[in-house]
Amino acid sequence: MAEPVRIALLGCGNVGAQVVRLLSEHADDLTPRVGRPLELVGVAVRDVSRPREGVAPGLLTGDADALVSREDVDVVVELVGGREPARSLVLSAMKNGASVVTANKALMAADGASLHAAARENDVDLYFEAAVAGAIPLLRPLRESLVGDRVRRVMGIVNGTTNYVLDRMDTEGDDLDDVIADAQRLGYAEADPTADVDGHDAAAKAAILASLAFHTRVSADQVEVEGIRGVSLADIRSAQAMDGVVKLLAVADRLDDERISVWVGPTIIPRNHPLGSVHGAFNAVVVEAEAAGQLMFYGQGAGGEPTASAVLGDLVTAARNRVHGVVGVGESSYADVRVAPSGDAVTRFHLIVDVDDRPGVLAAVAGVFATHGVSIETVRQQIRGEQDAELVIVTHPATKKALDATVDDLRGAPMVRSVVSVLRVEAL
Amino acid sequence: MAEPVRIALLGCGNVGAQVVRLLSEHADDLTPRVGRPLELVGVAVRDVSRPREGVAPGLLTGDADALVSREDVDVVVELVGGREPARSLVLSAMKNGASVVTANKALMAADGASLHAAARENDVDLYFEAAVAGAIPLLRPLRESLVGDRVRRVMGIVNGTTNYVLDRMDTEGDDLDDVIADAQRLGYAEADPTADVDGHDAAAKAAILASLAFHTRVSADQVEVEGIRGVSLADIRSAQAMDGVVKLLAVADRLDDERISVWVGPTIIPRNHPLGSVHGAFNAVVVEAEAAGQLMFYGQGAGGEPTASAVLGDLVTAARNRVHGVVGVGESSYADVRVAPSGDAVTRFHLIVDVDDRPGVLAAVAGVFATHGVSIETVRQQIRGEQDAELVIVTHPATKKALDATVDDLRGAPMVRSVVSVLRVEAL
Repeated sequence: MAEPVRIALLGCGNVGAQVVRLLSEHADDLTPRVGRPLELVGVAVRDVSRPREGVAPGLLTGDADALVSREDVDVVVELVGGREPARSLVLSAMKNGASVVTANKALMAADGASLHAAARENDVDLYFEAAVAGAIPLLRPLRESLVGDRVRRVMGIVNGTTNYVLDRMDTEGDDLDDVIADAQRLGYAEADPTADVDGHDAAAKAAILASLAFHTRVSADQVEVEGIRGVSLADIRSAQAMDGVVKLLAVADRLDDERISVWVGPTIIPRNHPLGSVHGAFNAVVVEAEAAGQLMFYGQGAGGEPTASAVLGDLVTAARNRVHGVVGVGESSYADVRVAPSGDAVTRFHLIVDVDDRPGVLAAVAGVFATHGVSIETVRQQIRGEQDAELVIVTHPATKKALDATVDDLRGAPMVRSVVSVLRVEAL
Repeated sequence: MAEPVRIALLGCGNVGAQVVRLLSEHADDLTPRVGRPLELVGVAVRDVSRPREGVAPGLLTGDADALVSREDVDVVVELVGGREPARSLVLSAMKNGASVVTANKALMAADGASLHAAARENDVDLYFEAAVAGAIPLLRPLRESLVGDRVRRVMGIVNGTTNYVLDRMDTEGDDLDDVIADAQRLGYAEADPTADVDGHDAAAKAAILASLAFHTRVSADQVEVEGIRGVSLADIRSAQAMDGVVKLLAVADRLDDERISVWVGPTIIPRNHPLGSVHGAFNAVVVEAEAAGQLMFYGQGAGGEPTASAVLGDLVTAARNRVHGVVGVGESSYADVRVAPSGDAVTRFHLIVDVDDRPGVLAAVAGVFATHGVSIETVRQQIRGEQDAELVIVTHPATKKALDATVDDLRGAPMVRSVVSVLRVEAL
């Protein structure tokens, strides 16, 4: 019997339990694919006394530090989540010569640079396919399949919770807060849904995608983030009226001046856009490259089993590399591209503005846009009650900076009651 | 200046010209991604006298054999197409120590086993992402990202020409022959469209996909093939009536008894199926795996630039491996899965049968189905003229064998004028 490749698992929640199950149930397939058997040698958990299905009690340990320092571990799978202690554990593991597989988007988005450097120094692999869009193969295609091409744009739905919420608002006409409550009840949303609803989860993924697509380093704090809390049924209906649908998009764009722009925000896209028909908690990402044209990747972005599939793919790859005594392709950040300030990003915008229903109001509002050089594509005026009207305005492409200044001025303008909402509008 | 990685190109048509262009225009990006510059050292073409844009005349040669035998070539890119002389050239190149990148689906589907063996023997890489679905990263995700999972089904639209034809029939109501003529005029179809229209191109791709998905060896001649010549507007309209659309699908399925079934054929799928909205010459492939669930990959399946993008991805990977003195993961065919005879494949079927409009005809026809154990799901009878009726029958899942026997008997039955068409019906 060949010497096994030894695996240590940090964390045994939803995903970890599935990793354990697949390692055992697929062992007959995994062994020939790796070239040697995979052996789970330890599982670090917080509560050692709780039995875990499929895990021999002797494998459980409360001492993650000791586990990652074991001499005989070849690959450490980090499923703890969050920045610390995950970061320290991963660094210890690499220092100790183990390759690392992680599903931790917060960690990779914040500490990617130092972790990649540690992987290089210690001559080990660092894989993290599961950190973005669950089971969907996305990082490996960007890193390898498209490596001879020039990516222009990555644009995707990378957070299932918010897509579920927006999809329900669109298809059922339900209110945001009601759907979030439902999502929590169904397990689609966390008890504290902040990271999802406010776009921070998507922003971490956008940073990882932008780094890979443009061969540079983008961290989560360079991503302009807006969540879905401000999205109302009025927005949804207004999008429907223009045959569009509101999605929380994560976008990384190469600008004309070779800087890049990375943002997350609720956005109206055409209903017949490839991303327009992504329903429920599914994820999908469109990659546009110079030669390849438009590609789309679609699948389940979360959940124990799909995420475990991605973890296993990385684990087998890291283990195969061990067997062959090599390491895979590391980080490629030679390009050192500058991230444009969020104000420089150019898109079209959709605004709902409550105004007095008086002669001259449209001219006044249009004047404010003109002052800031923002050109209006369409405006629709709806009388709502006595002396109360609503303007739905779609602009031509404009910088976020110019739009923000326009909105500031609108808020101070005499006939404007309130700027109800501002959404981006994207085509392809 | 670091020693370059030396590239030889065999064939300089549509795809080759784009490979040459990208190698030159993206050189500043490719060098850091590879770790050393890529240098094109020779281009073998049939007609050396014809100038090629972007290719120094000194690089052109009519002697492909000599080019692949050069001592200094690191990677050979084969874009000749067809089985010979491509096969001999690729074998010579590998014997000579060069890694090989090819876009040749016919070659890989027919001679994959011997070429993989040669790659192993000579310790070189053999990559062929461009052979299936052009720019869409599909083979690498199957080979690497899903390597820890268990694929149950691969189902896709992998031939752009036939998808263009069927899509036009569906959306414009045009006749098959007219659209084929148009497609030839527009360059979507070859002067001799046989390989596309009769499904052989899709069958080669199905064989490659099945081999990778199930870690086994499937050759093109093990794929049951039916092209689109028999698809009529009546079929298209009948599909529309059931909210479906006719697509030429390539399908590889794991059966309950662990054998696999691989086929290509015109098939009715629901219009809201992920593959139902793949229009024009686009390709898309759905992969269903045990843990990952359903994934979809979508993009341009043909054309010079998209195919060149996939070739470049492989080329950079092969070159990077050279720089690091390693070879990538080779063929994985340990599973040695049996391919079920085509008759054993189970699906639902859609039949159009011309019959006499006489009492008892439905009972008689239903009796023939019952004799062969094929259960009918729905039947719709349409009176077409005096004493002439049309039956549109959709069956419950049945083996192809049972269905074929049913059709044979129907053809001999007294009240049946003709079996106009037989299509498969697939849901997810």
